[in-house]
Amino acid sequence: MDFITILGLLAATLTTLSFLPQLLKTWQSKSAKDVSFIMLITFNLGVFIWLIYGIYLQALPIILANGVTLFFNIIILWLKIKYR
Amino acid sequence: MDFITILGLLAATLTTLSFLPQLLKTWQSKSAKDVSFIMLITFNLGVFIWLIYGIYLQALPIILANGVTLFFNIIILWLKIKYR
Repeated sequence: MDFITILGLLAATLTTLSFLPQLLKTWQSKSAKDVSFIMLITFNLGVFIWLIYGIYLQALPIILANGVTLFFNIIILWLKIKYR
Repeated sequence: MDFITILGLLAATLTTLSFLPQLLKTWQSKSAKDVSFIMLITFNLGVFIWLIYGIYLQALPIILANGVTLFFNIIILWLKIKYR
Protein backbone atom coordinates (compact mmCIF):
# COMPACT_ATOMS: atom_id res chain seq x y z
CA MET A 1 0.00 0.00 0.00
CA ASP A 2 1.43 3.42 -0.91
CA PHE A 3 1.87 6.40 1.45
CA ILE A 4 -1.06 8.41 0.07
CA THR A 5 -3.50 5.47 0.51
CA ILE A 6 -2.35 4.96 4.12
CA LEU A 7 -2.82 8.73 4.71
CA GLY A 8 -6.38 8.56 3.31
CA LEU A 9 -7.26 5.48 5.39
CA LEU A 10 -5.84 7.14 8.54
CA ALA A 11 -7.91 10.30 7.86
CA ALA A 12 -11.07 8.23 7.22
CA THR A 13 -10.55 6.15 10.40
CA LEU A 14 -10.04 9.26 12.57
CA THR A 15 -13.03 11.25 11.23
CA THR A 16 -15.26 8.13 11.45
CA LEU A 17 -14.28 7.00 14.96
CA SER A 18 -14.34 10.58 16.33
CA PHE A 19 -18.14 10.34 16.74
CA LEU A 20 -17.92 7.37 19.13
CA PRO A 21 -16.76 9.53 22.14
CA GLN A 22 -19.62 11.99 21.39
CA LEU A 23 -22.11 9.10 21.31
CA LEU A 24 -20.81 7.65 24.61
CA LYS A 25 -20.72 11.10 26.29
CA THR A 26 -24.34 11.86 25.33
CA TRP A 27 -25.41 8.32 26.31
CA GLN A 28 -23.81 8.62 29.76
CA SER A 29 -24.63 12.27 30.56
CA LYS A 30 -28.22 11.97 29.19
CA SER A 31 -27.79 15.58 28.02
CA ALA A 32 -27.40 16.99 24.49
CA LYS A 33 -28.52 20.59 25.07
CA ASP A 34 -25.27 22.05 23.63
CA VAL A 35 -25.28 19.84 20.51
CA SER A 36 -26.90 21.61 17.54
CA PHE A 37 -30.00 19.85 16.16
CA ILE A 38 -29.62 21.62 12.76
CA MET A 39 -25.98 20.42 12.63
CA LEU A 40 -27.05 16.80 13.25
CA ILE A 41 -29.83 16.91 10.60
CA THR A 42 -27.58 18.58 7.97
CA PHE A 43 -24.58 16.34 8.75
CA ASN A 44 -26.64 13.11 8.65
CA LEU A 45 -28.22 14.13 5.33
CA GLY A 46 -24.76 14.97 3.89
CA VAL A 47 -23.23 11.67 5.09
CA PHE A 48 -26.24 9.77 3.65
CA ILE A 49 -25.59 11.39 0.24
CA TRP A 50 -21.84 10.53 0.59
CA LEU A 51 -22.96 6.90 1.15
CA ILE A 52 -25.15 6.93 -2.02
CA TYR A 53 -22.17 8.52 -3.87
CA GLY A 54 -19.88 5.70 -2.66
CA ILE A 55 -22.42 3.02 -3.65
CA TYR A 56 -22.72 4.60 -7.16
CA LEU A 57 -18.92 4.58 -7.53
CA GLN A 58 -18.68 1.11 -5.88
CA ALA A 59 -15.93 2.65 -3.73
CA LEU A 60 -15.64 0.48 -0.58
CA PRO A 61 -13.63 3.02 1.54
CA ILE A 62 -16.30 5.74 0.94
CA ILE A 63 -19.12 3.24 1.68
CA LEU A 64 -17.45 1.94 4.88
CA ALA A 65 -16.39 5.34 6.30
CA ASN A 66 -19.76 6.99 5.63
CA GLY A 67 -21.80 3.91 6.60
CA VAL A 68 -20.17 3.79 10.07
CA THR A 69 -20.28 7.62 10.45
CA LEU A 70 -24.02 7.59 9.57
CA PHE A 71 -24.64 4.74 12.05
CA PHE A 72 -22.97 6.70 14.92
CA ASN A 73 -24.64 10.00 14.00
CA ILE A 74 -28.17 8.56 13.69
CA ILE A 75 -27.76 7.26 17.27
CA ILE A 76 -26.45 10.73 18.38
CA LEU A 77 -29.48 12.34 16.65
CA TRP A 78 -31.80 9.87 18.41
CA LEU A 79 -30.16 10.69 21.78
CA LYS A 80 -30.49 14.44 21.00
CA ILE A 81 -34.25 14.02 20.35
CA LYS A 82 -34.59 11.82 23.48
CA TYR A 83 -32.64 14.01 25.94
CA ARG A 84 -32.80 17.49 24.26
CA MET B 1 -21.37 18.24 -14.95
CA ASP B 2 -22.60 14.63 -14.53
CA PHE B 3 -25.07 13.38 -11.89
CA ILE B 4 -22.45 11.67 -9.74
CA THR B 5 -20.28 14.83 -9.53
CA ILE B 6 -23.32 16.92 -8.52
CA LEU B 7 -24.16 14.27 -5.88
CA GLY B 8 -20.60 14.43 -4.48
CA LEU B 9 -20.59 18.25 -4.41
CA LEU B 10 -24.00 18.27 -2.67
CA ALA B 11 -22.72 15.80 -0.04
CA ALA B 12 -19.51 17.83 0.49
CA THR B 13 -21.46 21.11 0.82
CA LEU B 14 -23.89 19.63 3.38
CA THR B 15 -21.26 17.94 5.60
CA THR B 16 -19.05 21.08 5.45
CA LEU B 17 -21.76 23.69 6.19
CA SER B 18 -23.36 21.51 8.91
CA PHE B 19 -20.74 22.76 11.42
CA LEU B 20 -21.78 26.40 11.02
CA PRO B 21 -25.00 26.01 13.12
CA GLN B 22 -22.94 24.23 15.84
CA LEU B 23 -20.41 27.09 15.81
CA LEU B 24 -23.17 29.75 16.07
CA LYS B 25 -25.03 27.81 18.77
CA THR B 26 -21.91 27.47 20.95
CA TRP B 27 -20.96 31.12 20.28
CA GLN B 28 -24.42 32.36 21.34
CA SER B 29 -25.10 30.02 24.27
CA LYS B 30 -21.51 30.29 25.62
CA SER B 31 -21.86 26.63 26.63
CA ALA B 32 -20.23 23.51 25.18
CA LYS B 33 -20.55 21.12 28.13
CA ASP B 34 -22.36 18.45 26.05
CA VAL B 35 -19.90 18.59 23.13
CA SER B 36 -17.20 15.89 23.45
CA PHE B 37 -13.63 17.26 23.69
CA ILE B 38 -12.16 13.91 22.50
CA MET B 39 -14.53 14.04 19.50
CA LEU B 40 -13.31 17.55 18.56
CA ILE B 41 -9.60 16.64 18.89
CA THR B 42 -9.97 13.38 16.91
CA PHE B 43 -12.20 14.97 14.25
CA ASN B 44 -9.91 18.01 13.76
CA LEU B 45 -6.85 15.72 13.46
CA GLY B 46 -8.70 13.53 10.91
CA VAL B 47 -9.88 16.52 8.85
CA PHE B 48 -6.32 17.96 8.92
CA ILE B 49 -5.00 14.66 7.48
CA TRP B 50 -7.82 14.73 4.84
CA LEU B 51 -6.55 18.22 3.91
CA ILE B 52 -2.92 16.99 3.55
CA TYR B 53 -4.32 14.05 1.47
CA GLY B 54 -6.16 16.50 -0.81
CA ILE B 55 -3.05 18.71 -1.21
CA TYR B 56 -0.96 15.60 -2.11
CA LEU B 57 -3.54 14.58 -4.75
CA GLN B 58 -4.01 18.25 -5.83
CA ALA B 59 -7.75 17.55 -5.54
CA LEU B 60 -9.47 20.94 -5.13
CA PRO B 61 -12.87 19.57 -3.85
CA ILE B 62 -11.11 17.62 -1.04
CA ILE B 63 -8.94 20.67 -0.19
CA LEU B 64 -11.91 23.09 -0.14
CA ALA B 65 -14.35 20.84 1.79
CA ASN B 66 -11.78 19.88 4.43
CA GLY B 67 -10.21 23.35 4.61
CA VAL B 68 -13.58 24.96 5.45
CA THR B 69 -14.57 22.05 7.79
CA LEU B 70 -11.24 22.42 9.64
CA PHE B 71 -11.72 26.22 9.91
CA PHE B 72 -15.19 25.80 11.50
CA ASN B 73 -14.09 22.98 13.82
CA ILE B 74 -10.97 24.74 15.09
CA ILE B 75 -13.26 27.63 16.15
CA ILE B 76 -15.69 25.13 17.79
CA LEU B 77 -12.69 23.54 19.61
CA TRP B 78 -11.53 27.00 20.75
CA LEU B 79 -15.08 27.78 22.02
CA LYS B 80 -15.16 24.38 23.80
CA ILE B 81 -11.87 25.19 25.60
CA LYS B 82 -13.11 28.74 26.38
CA TYR B 83 -16.60 27.86 27.69
CA ARG B 84 -16.20 24.14 28.71
